[in-house]
Amino acid sequence: MQIGMVGLGRMGANMVRRLLKQGHDCVVFDVNPDNVAPLVKEGATGATSPDDLVAKLSPPRAVWLMLPAAITPKIARDFAARLQAGDAIIDGGNSNYRDAIDLAAEFAPRGIDFIDTGTSGGIWGLERGYSLMIGGPVAAVQRLDPIFASLAPGAGLGIAADPVTGTAPMGYLHCGPSGAGHFVKMVHNGIEYGVMAAYAEGLNILKAANAGTQHREADAETAPLAHPQYYQFDIDLPAVTEVWRHGSVIGSWLLDLTAQALKQDPNLDQYGGRVSDSGEGRWTLQAAVETGVPAPVLASALFERFSSRGEAEFAGKVLSAMRNAFGGHLEKAK
Amino acid sequence: MQIGMVGLGRMGANMVRRLLKQGHDCVVFDVNPDNVAPLVKEGATGATSPDDLVAKLSPPRAVWLMLPAAITPKIARDFAARLQAGDAIIDGGNSNYRDAIDLAAEFAPRGIDFIDTGTSGGIWGLERGYSLMIGGPVAAVQRLDPIFASLAPGAGLGIAADPVTGTAPMGYLHCGPSGAGHFVKMVHNGIEYGVMAAYAEGLNILKAANAGTQHREADAETAPLAHPQYYQFDIDLPAVTEVWRHGSVIGSWLLDLTAQALKQDPNLDQYGGRVSDSGEGRWTLQAAVETGVPAPVLASALFERFSSRGEAEFAGKVLSAMRNAFGGHLEKAK
Amino acid sequence: MQIGMVGLGRMGANMVRRLLKQGHDCVVFDVNPDNVAPLVKEGATGATSPDDLVAKLSPPRAVWLMLPAAITPKIARDFAARLQAGDAIIDGGNSNYRDAIDLAAEFAPRGIDFIDTGTSGGIWGLERGYSLMIGGPVAAVQRLDPIFASLAPGAGLGIAADPVTGTAPMGYLHCGPSGAGHFVKMVHNGIEYGVMAAYAEGLNILKAANAGTQHREADAETAPLAHPQYYQFDIDLPAVTEVWRHGSVIGSWLLDLTAQALKQDPNLDQYGGRVSDSGEGRWTLQAAVETGVPAPVLASALFERFSSRGEAEFAGKVLSAMRNAFGGHLEKAK
Amino acid sequence: MQIGMVGLGRMGANMVRRLLKQGHDCVVFDVNPDNVAPLVKEGATGATSPDDLVAKLSPPRAVWLMLPAAITPKIARDFAARLQAGDAIIDGGNSNYRDAIDLAAEFAPRGIDFIDTGTSGGIWGLERGYSLMIGGPVAAVQRLDPIFASLAPGAGLGIAADPVTGTAPMGYLHCGPSGAGHFVKMVHNGIEYGVMAAYAEGLNILKAANAGTQHREADAETAPLAHPQYYQFDIDLPAVTEVWRHGSVIGSWLLDLTAQALKQDPNLDQYGGRVSDSGEGRWTLQAAVETGVPAPVLASALFERFSSRGEAEFAGKVLSAMRNAFGGHLEKAK
Repeated sequence: MQIGMVGLGRMGANMVRRLLKQGHDCVVFDVNPDNVAPLVKEGATGATSPDDLVAKLSPPRAVWLMLPAAITPKIARDFAARLQAGDAIIDGGNSNYRDAIDLAAEFAPRGIDFIDTGTSGGIWGLERGYSLMIGGPVAAVQRLDPIFASLAPGAGLGIAADPVTGTAPMGYLHCGPSGAGHFVKMVHNGIEYGVMAAYAEGLNILKAANAGTQHREADAETAPLAHPQYYQFDIDLPAVTEVWRHGSVIGSWLLDLTAQALKQDPNLDQYGGRVSDSGEGRWTLQAAVETGVPAPVLASALFERFSSRGEAEFAGKVLSAMRNAFGGHLEKAK
Repeated sequence: MQIGMVGLGRMGANMVRRLLKQGHDCVVFDVNPDNVAPLVKEGATGATSPDDLVAKLSPPRAVWLMLPAAITPKIARDFAARLQAGDAIIDGGNSNYRDAIDLAAEFAPRGIDFIDTGTSGGIWGLERGYSLMIGGPVAAVQRLDPIFASLAPGAGLGIAADPVTGTAPMGYLHCGPSGAGHFVKMVHNGIEYGVMAAYAEGLNILKAANAGTQHREADAETAPLAHPQYYQFDIDLPAVTEVWRHGSVIGSWLLDLTAQALKQDPNLDQYGGRVSDSGEGRWTLQAAVETGVPAPVLASALFERFSSRGEAEFAGKVLSAMRNAFGGHLEKAK
Repeated sequence: MQIGMVGLGRMGANMVRRLLKQGHDCVVFDVNPDNVAPLVKEGATGATSPDDLVAKLSPPRAVWLMLPAAITPKIARDFAARLQAGDAIIDGGNSNYRDAIDLAAEFAPRGIDFIDTGTSGGIWGLERGYSLMIGGPVAAVQRLDPIFASLAPGAGLGIAADPVTGTAPMGYLHCGPSGAGHFVKMVHNGIEYGVMAAYAEGLNILKAANAGTQHREADAETAPLAHPQYYQFDIDLPAVTEVWRHGSVIGSWLLDLTAQALKQDPNLDQYGGRVSDSGEGRWTLQAAVETGVPAPVLASALFERFSSRGEAEFAGKVLSAMRNAFGGHLEKAK
Repeated sequence: MQIGMVGLGRMGANMVRRLLKQGHDCVVFDVNPDNVAPLVKEGATGATSPDDLVAKLSPPRAVWLMLPAAITPKIARDFAARLQAGDAIIDGGNSNYRDAIDLAAEFAPRGIDFIDTGTSGGIWGLERGYSLMIGGPVAAVQRLDPIFASLAPGAGLGIAADPVTGTAPMGYLHCGPSGAGHFVKMVHNGIEYGVMAAYAEGLNILKAANAGTQHREADAETAPLAHPQYYQFDIDLPAVTEVWRHGSVIGSWLLDLTAQALKQDPNLDQYGGRVSDSGEGRWTLQAAVETGVPAPVLASALFERFSSRGEAEFAGKVLSAMRNAFGGHLEKAK
C-alpha cells in the first residue's frame, strides 16, 4: 500500500523502514533534506516539498505526520489544503487528542479523514513493532489496515483476531471515533510517567541505603537519623535491577532497559537528571482533573519532572523566606 | 539438599512443590495440619510440631519461614531456641528488614545464621520461579545456593554467571549482609505499589472518558465541565490493556495480568476496591523519609490504598466542617 | 453609588447588605423572587427581570453577577445584550479566569467593560468585609472604586494607600487586565484547598494516635504495627486546635473556624466526609500543569476531595484485581 | 518560680527573657559561654557547667532543655544523672516524641519527671508568647504551671479556663501522658510544612502567570503551551499577599510573614531555595504511615523540601536514562 510520511526523525524514519521491509510504497518528506536521502537509498521515494509529496501519491492518499505536537495542527492544515475528498491524514505524533477532535471536524466537510494514531515503541519499534492506538471513522481506519498491521508487532504473524479484543493482540487497536486514539495514547504516556517514576524513586532509595555510614550534622536545621545501624548497605543497582527481571512481580520492558543502562553506567554519570516532558503527561492530568478522577501518582510523576528542571525554585525561596521570618532559620549552603 | 519449610500458605506450599520437583528433601510444618497433608502426598516429609521439624532435619539444618510479618520474629526465636551452631533460619516472608538485622545479631553469638530472603513471584512462582533477594553472611548464603538456585527461575538452565551481575540473571542475588535482602525486597514492593497505582489511575481516567455524556449539576458546589465535547469516549478497557501488551513502552507482567483480569470481568464487579497493604510499602516510605529521599509517587500509591479502606474519612469531615464554617457550604449527599 | 446585583444566594445577598449599610443604592434580582423580597425590606430596590434591573439602573450602569460558574458566561451575555457603551458587568463568582478574558474581549467592541472580581470571605464577609481581587481596564476599575472599597474590609477606615501595595491593605486590589482578578482568586482557592488539607490530614493523624490500643490482625494482608507502645494517646482535638490558635506558627482564620467547629461537634458526626470542589482548585492545577510549575501539595489536596466522593473506586478495583492475579490475595471485607 | 535553661540559641534565649520579664528566676547554661553573658546582664543567673547549673537550682529542680533533637537524649541523660527524685527535666525542643516516652520511662524509677513540651512561636515568641503542647504526669505538669503560663501568650491575662478546652485559650495545654506533647507538636509541624507548601506552590504559579509571553521551543522534548493568550499576567506578589491578609479565607500568621518578606524582597533573591527540615515533618509522616492514615499533602510538602536540596537527582538520572533507552531522547541542557 502507498503512504506518505512527513517528519523523518527517530520515529518517522524507522516507521518508514519497517513499512518498506513489509513491501509498502513510501513517499517521504522532511524539512531537513538530509533526513530524506538515507531513506531513499533504502527504497523510499523522496519528496522535496509538501506539494511534491502530495503529487507523488495516488488517490485516495494517506499522509502520515510524525512531528512535534506543537507544529502538528499547522502542518495538518497545510496538507489538508492540498488534499481532496477520500484522502486521509494520519497523525502519529504525541499530539493533544483535542486537536484531533477539532481537526477531524474541520476537515470532515471536505471529505478528508483525519486519523489520530498514538504510536508507542520508541526507537525499538523498527525491530519490535509499534503499539498503535487509533481513532477515527471506521471506513478510513479499515482502509489503512495494511499499514497499521505492518507497523504493529503482530503484523504478518497470522494471529486470528480475538472476538473480545479484535486486533489488539496483534498490537493495534481502533479505540473509537476521532480523538480516541490519542486519548488512549495520552493515558498510556501518563501511566508511563508513573511507572518510570516508581522505578526511579525506588532506585534512589536503594542508593541511599548507606546513609548511616555518612556523617550527619547535629544542628537544629538537620533532621537526625535515629537509627544509622539500619542504613549500612551498599546496594549493587545493576545486579538488583537484573535480578528483578527474572521472576519478580515488577518485571517489565522498562525494567529491562533500566537494567541495561545501569550495567553500562552504574552511577548514570552521563546524565544530569533534568527530565523533559513532551505534553502527554500534562494532558492526562488535565483529563483527570476535568473528569474528577484522582491521579496523585501520575501527578507526582509529572511534577518530579518539572522539579528536576528547577521549576520549584521559587517555591523553595518562599519556604526559606517563611522559615527565616518565623524562626530566624538561615538557609544552609549546599 | 534438605530444607525445612514452616508456613504452608499460598507461597510456602508452592515453594515446597518447586523444590520437590527439583529433587530436594523438604520437611514441612504449618500450625494448620490441613496444609501439611497435601504436600506429604506430593513427596514432602510432614512434621507435627516445631520440635518434630527440627528433629527430622540433619545438621547443618536450614529452616525456611514463610509467615506473616507480624509473627515472624517470634517464630524465628522459637526455632532459634531449638537449633544449634551451624544451622540457619531463612525468612522468606515480607518482613521488615530491620527485624532481620536485629535477629541476625541476636542469633549470631550462638552460631546460628539468619538469612533474610525477599521472595517475589506470587502464586505464579511455582511455574515461573521466584525472584530471590538475599541478605546474610557469605558462607551461609553459599551453603544454601542449591535451594536458591532451584527456587529461582533460571535454576538448572545452565546460564553462566555474568561477571557484573553474578547470579542475578538466574533470578537470585546475594544483596549484602543481614537485612540487605529484605531491604531490596522492601523497595521492590514499594516500586510495585507505584507501578500498580500508575496503571490503576490511568485505567480510571480511561473509564471516565465518557464524562461529557453525563448530566452535571450547575450549582456552586459542582465544578463545571467546560468542554463536554472532549469527553465522549467509551473506551474498551480489555482491548486497550491488550494492545498495550504488544510493543508499547508500558508492557509488563503486571499489565499482562491486568489485561487478563479485565478480559474476564471488564468492570471488575467482583471487587469492592478496598486494597490491603502488607507493610513493605510502608517501610519503603519510612526508609525514604529517614534517608531524605523524595518518594512522592510511592507515597501516593500507599496513601491511595489507605484511602480505599476509608481511612481518609475523618479528614474529609474536617474539610466539610471548614467549608460549612467559612462558606455555609452544606455537604452534598452521595 | 448605584449597583445592580444579580444572584442573591449566600454571597450575593450579604454583599448587598454590606453595600446598603455603606449607603449605596442597590437594585437586586434573582431567578427566585423569594430571595429578592428580604433585601427589599432592608432597603434594596427589587427587580423582577433582567430587563427590569437594567431599566432601573442609570447609565453608566454596573451589573454585578454573583452566580455559579457554570452559568455565568451565559447570564453575562444576556446582560451584555441589554447594556450599552460605558456600562460594566462585574463577575464576582468563582468563574474560570479564561472566561473573563474571553468575555472581556467579546464585549469590548461594544464599549461594555467586563470586570472579573474574585471575592473571598464567605458568609463572614458581611461582617468582616470581602477580600477582592480585581481584573479589568483601569478606568472601569477606578470608576467602581467606591463599591470595591465598601465591600472590602478596610472600607471607610481612611487607610492611606501604601506606595508599594496600593489598596491591598484595605482588602482590595486591581491585579491586572481582564482575567487577572479571577486568576489570583483561582490561585487563592488552590492555596485554600492545600491549607485546609494540611489541617485535615494532621487532625486525622492526631485522631489515630491511639492506634496502638486497638486490636490488629496478624495475617499477610495486614501491615503489622511494630511499636504499639508509641500509639497510646487519646488526643483532645478541640483543645489542641484551640491551643494552636494562641501563639503557634500555624494560627490562621481557617484554624479559628476549625477549633470552633470541633468545640461544637468533637467527632464531626454531622458530616459524612464527602467534600465538594467548585472548580477553582482544578483550574489552579491546570495552570500549574500548563506552565510547568510543580504543585504536588495543591494536587494532592484536590485529589483527596475527588477520592472522598468515591471517585477512586475503580482504581481500587484494578489494584485488587492485580493483587488477586499475581498473589491470590482476596480482598478483605470492611 | 525558679528554672534552669540549657541551650541558649534563638529559642532558649528569648524564652529566658520572657520568663525574666514575668519575674521568674532563671539559671542559664550553654556550651558556648558567649550565649550566657548577655542573659546574665538581663538578670539571669549564669552557670558554667551542668554541675554548676544543677547546684544553683533548689529542689525540686526544673531543668528546661532547648537543644537540637539529635543531642537532646544524651544531654537529658547527663542531667538526669545529676538530679534527684522530685526534680523535672523539660524538653522544649523539636524532639521525637518516642524519645520522650522512652526517657520518661527511663527516669521514672528514680522519681525524676521528664516533661515533653512542644514549643511553637519562633523568634516572635518573646513578644507574642509561645504555644505550648505538654506531655507528662499530671502532678509535675501542674507544679510547672507558672512557667508554662508565663511562656504562653495568655499569661497574666486572667482568662478563666474554658470547661471544654482548659488552659488552651491561654496558649498552653497538657495534651496527655509522656510523649503526648511532642506528638501534638510533631503534627503541628507536619501541618506547618503543608500550609507553607500550599502558599509556596500558589505563589510559584502566580509567578508563572506570564508564561505565555516567553518563547517556547517547538521540539519533541518540549510540551507545547496551547493557549499562550491565557498566560499574559505580571502579578505583583507583594500586593497580592497583602490583599489576601484582609478578609480572605486564607489569612494566617504565615501569610502575614510572607507578605512582609515579599515587600522587602519581591523576588526573594537573597534565598537559594534550599529548604531544611528538622525532623518533625518526617516523624509526622512516619506516624501517618504506621497508623495507616493517608497524608499525601504532608508527604508532598516534605518531599518538596528534600527535592529542593537536590535529593531527587539520581531519580532524575534514572528517568533520563530510561528515556534515552526507549526513545533515544537526549537530555536537554539547562
